Amino acid sequence: MTDAVVRISIGTAAGSSEIHVGPGLLARAGEFLEGVAAPGPVLLVTDDTVGDLYAAVVEDALADHGFTPTTLRLPPGEESKTLEVVREVYGALLDLGADRGTPVVTLGGGVVSDLGGFAAATFLRGLTFLSLPTTLLAQVDASVGGKTGVNLLEGKNLVGAFHHPKVVLADTDTLATLDPGEFRSGLAEVVKMALTLDPVLLEALEAKASILGPDAPAAVLAPIVAAAVRAKAKVVMEDEREAGRRQVLNFGHTLGHALEAAAGYGAIRHGEAVAVGMAAALEISEARGLLRAGVRERALGLLTTLGLPTTVADLGVAIDPARLSEHLPHDKKMRAGALTLVLLRDVGEVEMSTESTEADTFFQTLFF
Amino acid sequence: MTDAVVRISIGTAAGSSEIHVGPGLLARAGEFLEGVAAPGPVLLVTDDTVGDLYAAVVEDALADHGFTPTTLRLPPGEESKTLEVVREVYGALLDLGADRGTPVVTLGGGVVSDLGGFAAATFLRGLTFLSLPTTLLAQVDASVGGKTGVNLLEGKNLVGAFHHPKVVLADTDTLATLDPGEFRSGLAEVVKMALTLDPVLLEALEAKASILGPDAPAAVLAPIVAAAVRAKAKVVMEDEREAGRRQVLNFGHTLGHALEAAAGYGAIRHGEAVAVGMAAALEISEARGLLRAGVRERALGLLTTLGLPTTVADLGVAIDPARLSEHLPHDKKMRAGALTLVLLRDVGEVEMSTESTEADTFFQTLFF
Repeated sequence: MTDAVVRISIGTAAGSSEIHVGPGLLARAGEFLEGVAAPGPVLLVTDDTVGDLYAAVVEDALADHGFTPTTLRLPPGEESKTLEVVREVYGALLDLGADRGTPVVTLGGGVVSDLGGFAAATFLRGLTFLSLPTTLLAQVDASVGGKTGVNLLEGKNLVGAFHHPKVVLADTDTLATLDPGEFRSGLAEVVKMALTLDPVLLEALEAKASILGPDAPAAVLAPIVAAAVRAKAKVVMEDEREAGRRQVLNFGHTLGHALEAAAGYGAIRHGEAVAVGMAAALEISEARGLLRAGVRERALGLLTTLGLPTTVADLGVAIDPARLSEHLPHDKKMRAGALTLVLLRDVGEVEMSTESTEADTFFQTLFF
Repeated sequence: MTDAVVRISIGTAAGSSEIHVGPGLLARAGEFLEGVAAPGPVLLVTDDTVGDLYAAVVEDALADHGFTPTTLRLPPGEESKTLEVVREVYGALLDLGADRGTPVVTLGGGVVSDLGGFAAATFLRGLTFLSLPTTLLAQVDASVGGKTGVNLLEGKNLVGAFHHPKVVLADTDTLATLDPGEFRSGLAEVVKMALTLDPVLLEALEAKASILGPDAPAAVLAPIVAAAVRAKAKVVMEDEREAGRRQVLNFGHTLGHALEAAAGYGAIRHGEAVAVGMAAALEISEARGLLRAGVRERALGLLTTLGLPTTVADLGVAIDPARLSEHLPHDKKMRAGALTLVLLRDVGEVEMSTESTEADTFFQTLFF
C-alpha cells in the first residue's frame, strides 16, 4: 500500500467524473478546477462545521489558480437539505453574476454535496460541479454515481437530479477530524461494497479492522476508500438509472431505511441501520438456503470488530415493530404487497428476491 | 400533403423522444402512454384555459387504457412558472402515491410543459413524461430538445433541467382554438427554422402564407409543424447542450429577448420580438456584406404576409433605447463587452459573429 493519490474514472450517458482519492487533495482544489473551468467567480458551498476546518485552505487553493471564491456556509445537518436552501444557493449564484461557465464547489458531507450538487444541476440547466467530500460516507457513497437531491417534508430525497461532479477529490486527511461514530457509519457502506462486490476489499477490511478509525494513516485509509469507490463506480457505469444492477447497492438498505424511519430520523446513524439491515439480509439469505456456509459468521465478525451493531438491541433505541412494517416499501402494484430484497449467495454474488407479505412476520422475529 | 400523423424520433445522450404531429392525437394519449408506462395513477398537469378545452378528452383517453388520471390545473400564464408551483406539482404527485414508475402528462403551452417537465425531471430524480403541446410555439419549440425549467424573480428560465418527454403528441387540431396573435407568434419560430435550417420549409411557408392561421386545415398545418420539428430535432441531436450548433436556434433571439425585457415582460409576444430580432439580424448580415442578395427582402415579405412585425415601430409599444442596451447579453469576460449574434449568409446557412460594443449604437440606429 502507498499513500499516493489513486484516480478512478467514471463515465455514463449522463456525464463523467474523475475521482481522486488520497491525502493532501483539498489544497489542490484550484489545480483540479482549472482543468474543467475557466478562471473567474466560483461558489463554494459548505457548512459551518466543515467550513471552520477547511474553507480557508480550499479558498486559498482556488485563489492561487485564478478563481474568485464566494463561500456560502449552511447550518450543518439534514435540516439544511431543503428546496428553501437550494433557493439560497441560487441567490448566491445570482449575486456573484454566475453564467453557464461558473463552477460550483461543494465541501462537506453528503448533505452539502447532495444539495449543492442539485443546485448546480438545475441552475441554468447545469453548472460544472467539483465535489470535495469530507466524510467517509460521502467519499465512498454520495460522491460516486451522480445522485443529487433534497428532502421534502413528506420524505427524504424525494426531489433530485442525476448530475455527475466533473471532479471529486476525496482527501483522506479530512477523515482525521471525523467523530468515531460518524466514521464507523461510513465503514458500514464500505462493508456493503465488499460483501456484494469485492472479495479482495473484504480481505483488506478484515486485515485492518482493528486499526480502522479516523486516525488511521492515509496509507491504510486511501486504498480502502479507493477500492470502495472503484466497486461503486463499476456498478454505476453498468446501470446508471438503477433499473437493475445498481440495486445491488441496496443491500442492507431496504431494512436499514425502515429501521431509520421507525426509529425517527436522526435517532440512529444511517450506517448503523445499514449494518443491522445487512445482518438481517444475511440471516434471510441463510434461512432461504442461498448463502454459502461461513459467510454470515465472517460478515458479522467484521461488523462487530469495526464496532458496528448487528441487532436491533445493539442500536440502543426503542423501535416499534408496527412502525417498522409501515416503513417497508411494499410494492403497491402487486396484490400481495411484495417486497424486493437484495440477498447474498456468496461474497461478491447477490440475488434479488421478492418476498411475500409473510416476510414481515419473519423480519419481526429477526429484529425483536 | 396528407393529414396522416408524422413521426419524428430524437435521440441524445440524455434521453430520447418520439414526436408525433398531426390531427386527432389528444384522444390517443392513453394508447401512446401505454407504450412507455405501466397502467396506474398518472398526473395530468394543465392550466385552466387549456383544461376547460381539452382535459376531459385526455382524461378519457388515459382512463381507456388503464390509467387513473389526477388533473392539476394551474392559473394560465408565465406567473405560474415558479418554484412554488413546482412544489405544488410535487405535492400532487405525493397525494397520488407516485413512485418511479408514475408518469406525468403535460397538456398546454410552453409554461405548462416547461414547468411540468421540470417537476417530472426532478421528482424521484426523474419520472416518465409525456407532452401534449397545444400551442404552435410549444409544438415547434418547447416540445423539442428536452429543455424544462422555471423562472426566478431575478430572471426567466434560470432554473431547469434537460429532460426529454418520452412521447410528444402535437395535435394540430388544438391550434384551431388559438388566438390569432398567439398563432402568429408561433409562426415566427417556424420562420426562424426555415431561414436558418430548411429552404424547403421556407418555400412551403411562402406558398401557404396567405392561408396560414389557426383555422387552416390539418393537411396544411401538420406538414409545416412537422418540418419545423424535424429541423429543430436535427440541431438538438447534433448538439444537445448548445455548446455550438444549437446556437443557430438563437437567430433573432439575442435582440428579441432584449426587446421583450426592455418592453417589460408580457407587453409584447415572444414571437413578435423574435420577428423584429430576425429583421435586425438580417439587416446586420446584409450590412456586413454576408447575406446573399434578395434573402432579406424575401424574409421580410414573408414575415409581413404572416402579419408579423419587422420594426420596433410595428410593435406598437414604447421601448427605451437605454434599457434595450442594458438587456443585451454582453460577455462579461471579454474586455470589450462583446456580444455574440447569429447572422445569416443564405437560407439554411448561418454564421456566428462577435460584435464589438459599437454594435449597440448600430442596433439603436436600426431600431429607433
